[in-house]
Amino acid sequence: MARIDTDRFLRDLHELRQIGRFRTGVHRPTYSPQDMQARRWLMERMAECGLEPSIDGIGNVLGRHPGPGPKLLVGSHIETQNEAGWLDGALGVVAGLALARAGLPVDVVACADEEGHYGGFLGSRSLLGELSEAEIDAARNRTTGQPLREALAEAGLAGLPRPALDPARYKGFFELHIEQGTQLEQAGLRAGVVTGIVAIWQWKIVIEGQQDHAGGTTMAERRDAGLTAIRLLAAIDAEFPRHVGERTTWTTGRITLDPGAPSIIPGRAEILFQFRDLSEEKLRELEAVLRRLIQESNRRERCPATLHALSLSKPALCDPTMMRCLEEAAEALAPGAWQRMPSGAGHDAQYMARIMPAAMLFTPSIGGISHHWSEDTKEEDLVLGVSILGEAAERYLRA
Amino acid sequence: MARIDTDRFLRDLHELRQIGRFRTGVHRPTYSPQDMQARRWLMERMAECGLEPSIDGIGNVLGRHPGPGPKLLVGSHIETQNEAGWLDGALGVVAGLALARAGLPVDVVACADEEGHYGGFLGSRSLLGELSEAEIDAARNRTTGQPLREALAEAGLAGLPRPALDPARYKGFFELHIEQGTQLEQAGLRAGVVTGIVAIWQWKIVIEGQQDHAGGTTMAERRDAGLTAIRLLAAIDAEFPRHVGERTTWTTGRITLDPGAPSIIPGRAEILFQFRDLSEEKLRELEAVLRRLIQESNRRERCPATLHALSLSKPALCDPTMMRCLEEAAEALAPGAWQRMPSGAGHDAQYMARIMPAAMLFTPSIGGISHHWSEDTKEEDLVLGVSILGEAAERYLRA
Repeated sequence: MARIDTDRFLRDLHELRQIGRFRTGVHRPTYSPQDMQARRWLMERMAECGLEPSIDGIGNVLGRHPGPGPKLLVGSHIETQNEAGWLDGALGVVAGLALARAGLPVDVVACADEEGHYGGFLGSRSLLGELSEAEIDAARNRTTGQPLREALAEAGLAGLPRPALDPARYKGFFELHIEQGTQLEQAGLRAGVVTGIVAIWQWKIVIEGQQDHAGGTTMAERRDAGLTAIRLLAAIDAEFPRHVGERTTWTTGRITLDPGAPSIIPGRAEILFQFRDLSEEKLRELEAVLRRLIQESNRRERCPATLHALSLSKPALCDPTMMRCLEEAAEALAPGAWQRMPSGAGHDAQYMARIMPAAMLFTPSIGGISHHWSEDTKEEDLVLGVSILGEAAERYLRA
Repeated sequence: MARIDTDRFLRDLHELRQIGRFRTGVHRPTYSPQDMQARRWLMERMAECGLEPSIDGIGNVLGRHPGPGPKLLVGSHIETQNEAGWLDGALGVVAGLALARAGLPVDVVACADEEGHYGGFLGSRSLLGELSEAEIDAARNRTTGQPLREALAEAGLAGLPRPALDPARYKGFFELHIEQGTQLEQAGLRAGVVTGIVAIWQWKIVIEGQQDHAGGTTMAERRDAGLTAIRLLAAIDAEFPRHVGERTTWTTGRITLDPGAPSIIPGRAEILFQFRDLSEEKLRELEAVLRRLIQESNRRERCPATLHALSLSKPALCDPTMMRCLEEAAEALAPGAWQRMPSGAGHDAQYMARIMPAAMLFTPSIGGISHHWSEDTKEEDLVLGVSILGEAAERYLRA
């Protein structure tokens, strides 16, 4: 059995935490000086483990195992949300280092911009050959508006090649990640074997009314886009629970009333609405419910609503054999203290799953907190996570 | 009977329209160079009509009639909302000039900043002695953030006295204004005798939840402040119509979900909500309904809602004798083509009504449009309006 140096694993995690430190978390937005420092740090660690490190034209860092035979790909991402946690992404990458250091035939990868500062999964999509130069030309930082091309040039990445991964090289992809929820904590469990990564269907609902003075316009005369929005959202709240599965989620993240002034009847409302599920059939059913509720709104209300699909991702199911190896390893190292569970959040693994078998392991998040500097996990759970991952990798290589 | 020079009245209106012209409307925000030019233009017109013009330390322009005996005060305001209409405010001030020019014992007033660029009714409140130096110290432009003191200094108004009006000098205040709604137009009428100016009770409702990742947090675990907001607003929508009067209005002008991102469960929601009515009893009843709905929400929901009063103004009823004079004049000049109606919007008259009898006359707004450069009224209706005002003023002076 491969021997994971868990002390070194924790030391690596804490060393990486110092780069861009913010309170007890980190601030390493994609291509920032802190992020690039972290990528250089990672390439040095890879070389120490005997891997051949490289960085590509979108910032992906890949450490290739030099030996012969089939390999595993292990990793995640190392940039962070703004002022965010020290484990999100970093855990999976540093776990990859630990497996390589233990002598397992592992390539380690840090996919760039999983956090979406410039787009959606730029790094993993580039590794699949699915990121076009035109998309890079058009992308901008969602906060600062800086063009991606300019950020790449400043980071010293302009002009570097962006080779796609060769699926034939790999037997599978493993990603260790924090749960970013409280399922494990509330159940008193220490590890979660991920069954799949839910798809996110993201919508914009636009409602057109008539902007008017809130004093001069009687209720009967009004075409209040905000009121139509409230009624539609209340109908969704009443109807969705009848159609959803056990782990379906649906969220209204933003409601914008235009112009948004206290004494002006909103002439326009814009709603950001999404739902998530592991089953495409369920997603299609929810879309049908949403379209029906909007049709009913348009029959009843004076302000027409239109539905615009922003993004419709595909659910990614984890590989059954890899899952079984994770389950056996979890049961061996933490008997009865693990469960199967879907991932409600998106991860690089959902892209890797398109070209090779893929699986994920969750460690508990204290209080379910993530995307915040106070994000944390008990060190014993981190150690258990990397140990299960190592054990599962060995079992899967033998499988 | 006093002879109103309606051609000159229209010429004055069109001349004033040239100052700060924007498309077919005007842009004269309070204390802007265009606004100050309009105030100087007004003082020149006042002098031509035989009035003694003055400007005070908050920008109020007052033209005093030099003769003996009781006076009427006639006016409104001349600054505008940004890129707004040519008649809102200007109509009432220029109508005052027309009455003075016709020989009526009239003081003409343009109250500063009725449009609230720096506060609420700064000018009319100063004329009542209700505007403190401390409030002026603290006030800033709601758009640019410029301190009011700085704006007053740039406009050359710093250090000027701010005398209060002497109520004993006046028999009453008349204000001619555009309707800013479609009541008259839809009824095919040409004038509205205002029964009173509704009070606005403006509230902020704050709902506290728990910000979480929309993927990692199950529906059962969530404390979604946005969802509680939707349910509360739906309850208001269902319940308010059972309690309101014929001309009550209620409006949700803004819903802010924090942080407002597509994949984050809102941790906080803020709602701007207001209702308006002419009856204080009705306003108190609506407040009780609102408080009950919030209590019910707090019993039912996991996200507590709190109610914060932002401003609770008082309704201002128009003087019955002045209203009767307006009605008799309207019936004499436009038989059957007028109605009584409340004002849903606030006006300087609501402050003047605190120290003297006050009344208002509305002319129709084409399409109900106001606070927009396309605001307009037929010239024949403008002429009818100033003629009714002149006739009513004569009748009231005799009454």
